[in-house]
Amino acid sequence: MGEQIKFQLGEDDIPWTWYNLAADLPEIAPILDPATATPLGRDDLARTMPEPLADQELSTEAEFAIPEPVREIYRQWRPTPMFRARRLEQALGTPAKIYYKYEGVAPTGSFKPNSAVPQVYYNKLAGRQRLVVETGAGQWGSAIAFAAALFDMSAKVYMVKVSYQQKPYRRSLMETFGTNCTPSPSTETAAGRAVLAENPDHPGSLGVAKSEALQAVFADGKSGYARGSSLNHVCAHQTVIGQEAIQQMALADDYPDIVIGCAGGGSNLAGLSFPFLREKLRGGKDVRLIAAEPVACPTLTKGRIAYDYADTRQLTPLFRTHTLGHRFVPPAVHAGGLRAHNIAPLVSRAVEDGYMEAVALRQTACFQAGVIFARSEGIVPAPESTHAVRAAVDEALRCRDEGVGRTILFGLSGHGNFDMAAYEQYFAGRLRDDTLTDEALANGLASIPQPATV
Amino acid sequence: MGEQIKFQLGEDDIPWTWYNLAADLPEIAPILDPATATPLGRDDLARTMPEPLADQELSTEAEFAIPEPVREIYRQWRPTPMFRARRLEQALGTPAKIYYKYEGVAPTGSFKPNSAVPQVYYNKLAGRQRLVVETGAGQWGSAIAFAAALFDMSAKVYMVKVSYQQKPYRRSLMETFGTNCTPSPSTETAAGRAVLAENPDHPGSLGVAKSEALQAVFADGKSGYARGSSLNHVCAHQTVIGQEAIQQMALADDYPDIVIGCAGGGSNLAGLSFPFLREKLRGGKDVRLIAAEPVACPTLTKGRIAYDYADTRQLTPLFRTHTLGHRFVPPAVHAGGLRAHNIAPLVSRAVEDGYMEAVALRQTACFQAGVIFARSEGIVPAPESTHAVRAAVDEALRCRDEGVGRTILFGLSGHGNFDMAAYEQYFAGRLRDDTLTDEALANGLASIPQPATV
Repeated sequence: MGEQIKFQLGEDDIPWTWYNLAADLPEIAPILDPATATPLGRDDLARTMPEPLADQELSTEAEFAIPEPVREIYRQWRPTPMFRARRLEQALGTPAKIYYKYEGVAPTGSFKPNSAVPQVYYNKLAGRQRLVVETGAGQWGSAIAFAAALFDMSAKVYMVKVSYQQKPYRRSLMETFGTNCTPSPSTETAAGRAVLAENPDHPGSLGVAKSEALQAVFADGKSGYARGSSLNHVCAHQTVIGQEAIQQMALADDYPDIVIGCAGGGSNLAGLSFPFLREKLRGGKDVRLIAAEPVACPTLTKGRIAYDYADTRQLTPLFRTHTLGHRFVPPAVHAGGLRAHNIAPLVSRAVEDGYMEAVALRQTACFQAGVIFARSEGIVPAPESTHAVRAAVDEALRCRDEGVGRTILFGLSGHGNFDMAAYEQYFAGRLRDDTLTDEALANGLASIPQPATV
Repeated sequence: MGEQIKFQLGEDDIPWTWYNLAADLPEIAPILDPATATPLGRDDLARTMPEPLADQELSTEAEFAIPEPVREIYRQWRPTPMFRARRLEQALGTPAKIYYKYEGVAPTGSFKPNSAVPQVYYNKLAGRQRLVVETGAGQWGSAIAFAAALFDMSAKVYMVKVSYQQKPYRRSLMETFGTNCTPSPSTETAAGRAVLAENPDHPGSLGVAKSEALQAVFADGKSGYARGSSLNHVCAHQTVIGQEAIQQMALADDYPDIVIGCAGGGSNLAGLSFPFLREKLRGGKDVRLIAAEPVACPTLTKGRIAYDYADTRQLTPLFRTHTLGHRFVPPAVHAGGLRAHNIAPLVSRAVEDGYMEAVALRQTACFQAGVIFARSEGIVPAPESTHAVRAAVDEALRCRDEGVGRTILFGLSGHGNFDMAAYEQYFAGRLRDDTLTDEALANGLASIPQPATV
């Protein structure tokens, strides 16, 4: 049978810079102050992030140098491998060539440390003593816990309650790194208490958890806040993935026709796809970029492009992006990392400008593809990553039906070691396709601020 | 602060041969037929293993060529990284240099696939359609499930019941790879039913699970059995670890004074240490080899060197090795992979001949070291691996007390992603130091066959 092929780079091939797509798109919409509807500047942003990150957030420079202490830590697991999935191709009987870039080799099992490490580093330089963050499925919280341990800082994580219950061992992982983890909504913050007063059984959402983390940061002058996705600087940090993949495709003497990533907050997708988009924007080969999101949280396929908050309590600035409304609460699918009501403005802009497509996928179809992948390639994907697997399988099957060989590259953003309860449910036939109701969608969209109010 | 340093080899540095220590030790004790007390030959062994493995088992050649299809699959995760743990050194304030070889980057998170892949490969070549194995903590079962999926074979795993209960997601992992997993003792086999008749609450043991797996193989002419540890050929397969480590120590321009591995069935320890012992036996630098075992199952420190069975039902041949008796049932410590009543004959022989020392360690002390390690190095060790961490920490602290800098290399045999429940118990103060009673030890030792009967 066909064998998997690994394309392995050396340490010297770890990128020296992060790529910023904002350099290559005209007229990036500013981040607005919700009170004044005026663009936020460096000093405004620097109230909740270290100055170097505020600079990156507003920059239209194409490249940011990766600090050497960050690159040192990247060396623990980077460059990550890229594989040609020949066994999967054979299982599907497709003429397509399928490659995947695997970020699960990172210590916490996903792509998240790519940004957690620099964010903790800059916060440490800025004199912060503690990091406070929210987390969905626990990947971001684990990555911050990992990075905080390495920089001798403490950390506090508010974890979306439904994921906290689905993935109890994520909490143990954070605790092992020395980080305290609390299910959100919690009674620790005013934001959490307000949500619980409305609905004591609230399953939590990234928006609520983000409000809690921000309030905890504001309540204490010593803590820093770190964003797991969405913002320009986070997307930039993740471009180490795509930059490496471009080198690895060259090793394979190939180039993708299609690049696929799962889409939640958008940084994993951005990290893989933006370097390929740069090539295209600068006159290189055309490439189809596909965002794979859950039908339960169809931000790109059913959201509106509008200014909106990133949290339920309206503590964040306003970002112009695809949004389902900051009060939107998605069903409790296992891909907790994809339960975001809005997405990275740069990803949204890439979709708006026609550089990227989006597909919405059902949970059970994604797990089915995840199992096919595991049995072919020997790696169990995280529930989030199964969305990219499913989209890649669908494209490969289309190649088969059309009798056309295309080159497909997808991002395997993490392993599923902490998500086996979800696979257990899948095999037991207990996994449901929770889709959102028209009412829930309408309620969410109704919470998008009207232009007059911004 | 000091940074971790990674020593990374290229694909071409994956060893081309497995090393067989039997070539360098005189007069290896034969494996005996229990009925006749005569040495088993190739044809006898070939009744339960493919001929190439029977040849390896009996061989006194130093090297076995690694088949290309096996080396192809090794490339998915090999060469594994070796790290200098400078952050751990600083946390301990030791002048020692601490290195660790990390096998947790393998798809199932431990060293086990190093032998699962060739064993499944040889069984496939021999026309077997299914693999049946026992597993303790689930590492061996997962590795077989992984390898079977890659070679399009089916597999069946009997998992020691106490580990099955402690680590439910190991079962889900095996199922995701398409393998059926049953807690042992089970009602599926005569061996399991006999044990349950004596004690319906029997927690299971590797010996019982092995009897069940062997009976299932004997009941059906199509299945093959694969050994997760102990046998010479398994130890040989694992020497890819130590062979790579020797190359990596050369990259570090260093050489260990002390090499440490955790000891259960012995193959992880053998894999790391035997290549260093070869160097010594062939006139190279002296090195202290240390086996780290749990006080709950002190095979090397309290066992006897004698001919004994590897399973409770006396279905295996007799091996001359350190043993606590084939009826010994260790307390239910979380390091399920170290709950073996006997150990690899070659490891036993290395101890007997004075080439290797053994230390027995308490579970809570091991988890304490595991947490220190996680917070320094960013990797959560498997409970088994924490024994090697603890022994390395103890040696490093001795260096500090003596004011002597030594070079310590230990094997980090796997990550703890599937063992977070154990860490949860540790942090909650609920982890106990289950040590064996004098009575349990005496009962175990009493089951060792007397010379007259062999």
